[in-house]
Amino acid sequence: MSRVFTKDTQLCMSLSGRPSNIGTRFHNYLYDELDLNFVYKAFTTTDLPAAVAGIRALGIRGCGVSMPFKESCIEHVDVMHDSASAIDSVNTIVNEDGVLHAYNTDYQAVADLVREAGLDPAWSVAVTGSGGMAKAVVAALRDTGFTTGTVVARNERTGPALAEKYGYGWSATADEVAADVLVNVTPVGMAGGPDSDALPFATEQIGAARAVVDVVAVPSETPLILAARAAGKPVITGAQVVALQAAEQFTLYTGVRLRTEQIQRASEFSRR
Amino acid sequence: MSRVFTKDTQLCMSLSGRPSNIGTRFHNYLYDELDLNFVYKAFTTTDLPAAVAGIRALGIRGCGVSMPFKESCIEHVDVMHDSASAIDSVNTIVNEDGVLHAYNTDYQAVADLVREAGLDPAWSVAVTGSGGMAKAVVAALRDTGFTTGTVVARNERTGPALAEKYGYGWSATADEVAADVLVNVTPVGMAGGPDSDALPFATEQIGAARAVVDVVAVPSETPLILAARAAGKPVITGAQVVALQAAEQFTLYTGVRLRTEQIQRASEFSRR
Repeated sequence: MSRVFTKDTQLCMSLSGRPSNIGTRFHNYLYDELDLNFVYKAFTTTDLPAAVAGIRALGIRGCGVSMPFKESCIEHVDVMHDSASAIDSVNTIVNEDGVLHAYNTDYQAVADLVREAGLDPAWSVAVTGSGGMAKAVVAALRDTGFTTGTVVARNERTGPALAEKYGYGWSATADEVAADVLVNVTPVGMAGGPDSDALPFATEQIGAARAVVDVVAVPSETPLILAARAAGKPVITGAQVVALQAAEQFTLYTGVRLRTEQIQRASEFSRR
Repeated sequence: MSRVFTKDTQLCMSLSGRPSNIGTRFHNYLYDELDLNFVYKAFTTTDLPAAVAGIRALGIRGCGVSMPFKESCIEHVDVMHDSASAIDSVNTIVNEDGVLHAYNTDYQAVADLVREAGLDPAWSVAVTGSGGMAKAVVAALRDTGFTTGTVVARNERTGPALAEKYGYGWSATADEVAADVLVNVTPVGMAGGPDSDALPFATEQIGAARAVVDVVAVPSETPLILAARAAGKPVITGAQVVALQAAEQFTLYTGVRLRTEQIQRASEFSRR
């Protein structure tokens, strides 16, 4: 036995419709390595108000929020910080003595990865999806300088609304869309889903693109990423997005800022 | 790193006004030894309804309930089992797919220890206290055959009510009480409390007794237990009660029945 838990051990957690192992393994790996008195565990719920009230009542230190709770949790938190309020989407709750603070670390992670990858802001982008994660991605792209873009979303309410907010165009389908950077923020390609073998963009569109981004993290080698690699395009994977946003959460929960190689190792462990 | 937590790791917890390390260390020690995919953590709360609703909403597998929540939690659970309903006191909640089942493992633990110690049911008993734990102790004594007893409690409502329910006498103070078995179920002797150095019975009463029981677990060598040992009396300590009731909880949460030596080792580890 290595770690010994005590009454003072702090719990961090996640809430999502379909929990994966990634967050649990990422955070616990680093608690271990850094000898922090924390433990992390993934949860799902069918009663979001009671779950969030339970976080507050039990003094659970932090909570990662994933689909489908990123927007519905807003009315249950106490303080919306800029990263979350700017896009009306929460992926992180930090409990400060019973006051629930909400953030969005996806936004920061996507912005950082796009900058690091050296994608040219003059390039046009196409983003599939219009949910909480799509809001974070579009906002991050717009705020890193990508002024020409298309939101691809079937939903005729949220799709145009997201596009309009950031000065992008809207298209109900990807068929006619041409863009330099293709970004998938739908569950297409996600393991266990109905479209796990599908591509969100046509092979021709991938071939004509300059870079491809997919936020699907399980697997991170989605059909889209594999097709982009096969076509020799630079990619940003969901694994990279998940690891960087988790590292931001880690800092919010523990106060500890991680080094790049620590994030890398924890990410590799989390996906084993 | 030994234990690797996953999304399927089940959380068990405790709720009490003043968490100790004992439950956290007891349960996690055995999860480790038996390689069970569980983790245990102690909580307190200032919002019991939200805390219990959170247990249900988050699918937390089990919860030990200590002072001051043993009675106030009753209205928030779904199914009261005999051990809890007979004494209107809950110390264990088991979450079966969102349905919260309530039990009292203190009752069973005290009954088992009194039997094992060979105390003669013809002896008279005096029990201090009239809260949730006192109910469990009086019921356990009565149900193992101790028909002659006194409830010692200042509270003029709960004291006589508890005494009457089990056919015992009631006394507001211990001063005039003579009994073969002295049982303390108040916080007298508890570390950190206002009466940590005090005795719930006079030295003369201890000298005249045949056995002494104390449910105070931190420390388990209370002034009462030390005085009884010094007087050569057989004792049952709070450490024994806590360990045996925790073992019953362990079985309810995990389905695994522990051997005596496993309980013993986990108890020793939990108190280090």
